[in-house]
Amino acid sequence: MVNQQRQAVVGIVGGGLVGALNAIYFAQRGWKVELYELRPDMRLPANRESRKGRSINLALSERGLSALRATGLDLEKTILDASVPMRARMVHIGKQGTQISQAYDVNGKHINAVDRARLNELLLDAIEKMKDVTIYFEHRLTQIDLDYNRLEFSTSDGKKEYQPDFIIGADGAYSRTRSQMMRRMRMNFEQQYIDAGYCELSMPAAKGADGKPAFALDPNHLHIWPRHTFMLIALPNPDFTFTCTLFMPFEMFDQIQTEEALMSFFEEHFNDAIPLIGEESLKYAYFNNPHGSLVSIKASPYNYGDRALIIGDAAHAMVPFYGQGMNCGFQDVEVLHQILDRFGVHPMIQEDGIQGLKEALDAYSESRAKDAHAICDLALYNYCEMRSAVTSVRFIARKKLEHAIHYIFPKLIIPLYTMVSFSTLPYSKAIERWHRQSYWLNAAMVSTTMATTAMVAVMGLKYRDQLSGSITQIIQTLKSKIA
Amino acid sequence: MVNQQRQAVVGIVGGGLVGALNAIYFAQRGWKVELYELRPDMRLPANRESRKGRSINLALSERGLSALRATGLDLEKTILDASVPMRARMVHIGKQGTQISQAYDVNGKHINAVDRARLNELLLDAIEKMKDVTIYFEHRLTQIDLDYNRLEFSTSDGKKEYQPDFIIGADGAYSRTRSQMMRRMRMNFEQQYIDAGYCELSMPAAKGADGKPAFALDPNHLHIWPRHTFMLIALPNPDFTFTCTLFMPFEMFDQIQTEEALMSFFEEHFNDAIPLIGEESLKYAYFNNPHGSLVSIKASPYNYGDRALIIGDAAHAMVPFYGQGMNCGFQDVEVLHQILDRFGVHPMIQEDGIQGLKEALDAYSESRAKDAHAICDLALYNYCEMRSAVTSVRFIARKKLEHAIHYIFPKLIIPLYTMVSFSTLPYSKAIERWHRQSYWLNAAMVSTTMATTAMVAVMGLKYRDQLSGSITQIIQTLKSKIA
Repeated sequence: MVNQQRQAVVGIVGGGLVGALNAIYFAQRGWKVELYELRPDMRLPANRESRKGRSINLALSERGLSALRATGLDLEKTILDASVPMRARMVHIGKQGTQISQAYDVNGKHINAVDRARLNELLLDAIEKMKDVTIYFEHRLTQIDLDYNRLEFSTSDGKKEYQPDFIIGADGAYSRTRSQMMRRMRMNFEQQYIDAGYCELSMPAAKGADGKPAFALDPNHLHIWPRHTFMLIALPNPDFTFTCTLFMPFEMFDQIQTEEALMSFFEEHFNDAIPLIGEESLKYAYFNNPHGSLVSIKASPYNYGDRALIIGDAAHAMVPFYGQGMNCGFQDVEVLHQILDRFGVHPMIQEDGIQGLKEALDAYSESRAKDAHAICDLALYNYCEMRSAVTSVRFIARKKLEHAIHYIFPKLIIPLYTMVSFSTLPYSKAIERWHRQSYWLNAAMVSTTMATTAMVAVMGLKYRDQLSGSITQIIQTLKSKIA
Repeated sequence: MVNQQRQAVVGIVGGGLVGALNAIYFAQRGWKVELYELRPDMRLPANRESRKGRSINLALSERGLSALRATGLDLEKTILDASVPMRARMVHIGKQGTQISQAYDVNGKHINAVDRARLNELLLDAIEKMKDVTIYFEHRLTQIDLDYNRLEFSTSDGKKEYQPDFIIGADGAYSRTRSQMMRRMRMNFEQQYIDAGYCELSMPAAKGADGKPAFALDPNHLHIWPRHTFMLIALPNPDFTFTCTLFMPFEMFDQIQTEEALMSFFEEHFNDAIPLIGEESLKYAYFNNPHGSLVSIKASPYNYGDRALIIGDAAHAMVPFYGQGMNCGFQDVEVLHQILDRFGVHPMIQEDGIQGLKEALDAYSESRAKDAHAICDLALYNYCEMRSAVTSVRFIARKKLEHAIHYIFPKLIIPLYTMVSFSTLPYSKAIERWHRQSYWLNAAMVSTTMATTAMVAVMGLKYRDQLSGSITQIIQTLKSKIA
């Protein structure tokens, strides 16, 4: 019987971040891996230029880090060494560019600005050190025959076909794997565009006091210029530059068609950013970089029996406002492999397929779709928060109260941002807990003890031992309701 | 200047019901029309057989009739002559097949069972009598270049190209026009499958007392065997047959894999239907007809500037449980042309395109998407109602109360079914009104006057002059709240 077994082959469409990490996981569990990538090898010098101007910087946080860590390959350390920690939001207000720092976490936890291409290269390098993995570059998927698991690609050498035992689509928001699966199965699907588009701008390194390159803004912050219906953000890069992204309704992009209009718009709204970006650089980027659109995508189920699965953006694209797109995709990979473990799926083809694979994929799809839907919705919600709420008094007071209680009783009230960015708690659970917390926090906010509470919160966290009787009382109530 | 004008060409993809009716409307307003249809001409004898076993019968009601009537072509009369009026639901309960008739409308209005193919043929015949319309059969759309409005089709004579000024996709739920548009524009899109599939069965004509063919069941009814998680329905055809459709979860279809299992399932649940359908016919149809899936589709916007538009199922496929798919599609056409009138759109190409077309399409898309979303949701809701609620005591009491009040005060409480099927009120308005009514009707139902009310309602409508004081009082309240 053992002779009839052979090693199972997984074919992964898409060698981006999620596809590449998934290839590592599958190779580590003993599968033969074929990784098909549309683009040429990004590590070749000739291909380095083409990546400019098209990516929003990435914020790597705990979910992503956990998935990298679980490979045991020291990927986490390598990528963190090449990233810039961001401990807070820096909100830029008014023409003078008044800056207000809002810590992400009361205990000093931080997210990390990473370069997408660098991370991707690191993963591809790691793959090539593993046995049983083949990367096929410049392979454009044309169609999938799900009856025979036959993948057809167009390449510069003409049509090529592959026939893995199990197909994974990690080919992004406009996944062709997904659209091919949708022809054969009853997949629920939703795509929703927001009215805003984005344009990438770049802020060069400044000159430090010693004449060496230096950051033009505080590097340990994610900088935001919130303007209600539009905003500018800036994330630091290790080379002392910032990558900036302008988000605004397409209608406004359409209105700003001349250099004069652009400059007067920036003078009005982002005056302090002009000298940092540089007028010429600003004009060039605005009129030459693409104005991209932002889409939120939900699908379910993610699998077609034990034959095919979508993962990462192919399964759940989200708008970038919670910094969770990549983190969610990486967590997909970790969760998938935890479930494959739980169902005892081995990389061996038996007469009737791979034992337990279908059941494992069904279980993965059911639980993961719920979590992905939750973070997709949250990312949309955060678009509103980032554009405007970060400047509202109520929002700030509420945040401070939340943070204060979290600092004193770290397990009682956990801010949503902390649960999402600094834990691996399933997204749907994080949101459920947040709803429960919010109910009682809002009650506390409007209660007569609000004044005391806010005072304590705003005055800082140094007075934890001198908390007034009223806040202690609120916390007792909260404790009994939430825990 | 006038010399620079030329007659505008509209290219309609899909010669089904909505595409064909739309072709008539455009020809009538002076456009040159090209109609591209995937299938061969359905009117040729050789193509008649292929349509069997794949369509749920259609229930033509006021919205559809209104759109036919507005052509002034006598289409309404011709199709009604070939249809069977259905005045009520006939609910089949229990093994004995107890039948309960539930009128659709208290004033005797009815819907009409029509044969999809016959209606389509009628429309194609009407088109061919018009000038400036060309029908291209056996044209499979392969792609659309929206920069130049170039449509590419594959035909048995090879690739063909057309270049109309304005493209309309009337190519159904899996519209290729739509998917081509989605590559170019930010279209919000949602598809949702229900867990149930359907299988068409056929009930032959019975023999009447005089030996002539006769209907096996009362023909003026839409027959339903509601069984909570599944159901059977039957719609009459003019040739004395009934077209039956079995709706049930795919899981159940998967479980019923043998003739024995099928028969024991029917004996348990649809015993009275077995002799009418015939055991052999039942087995043959169940195991040979396709088990189709049911999808609900929403999209928006419907137009890409003034270049392309989706309409009918391509824009809003719905599950068939409100009998509104075709009616909604026909109303799309009537509403579209009302809006083209309102914006004064003439079939003349000026230097900068067709005056007012973009504005008209924007207005159409905005208002119609809201209505289509509403009926899509309602059709899903009605799936629950048809499968189970039609047998619940509360449901029946509520319906009777609604009908009674409507009968007495026809403008005060209008049952939802009446607004949807017997009026042309925009769907979204109908539903808004229904929500307002429901609030007060439910209040009435639980109020202390319920007993009196129900008694009056159940005892029939004959006692309208002897209404008790309490129902008068309820109605006074309702009047002040709703109107």
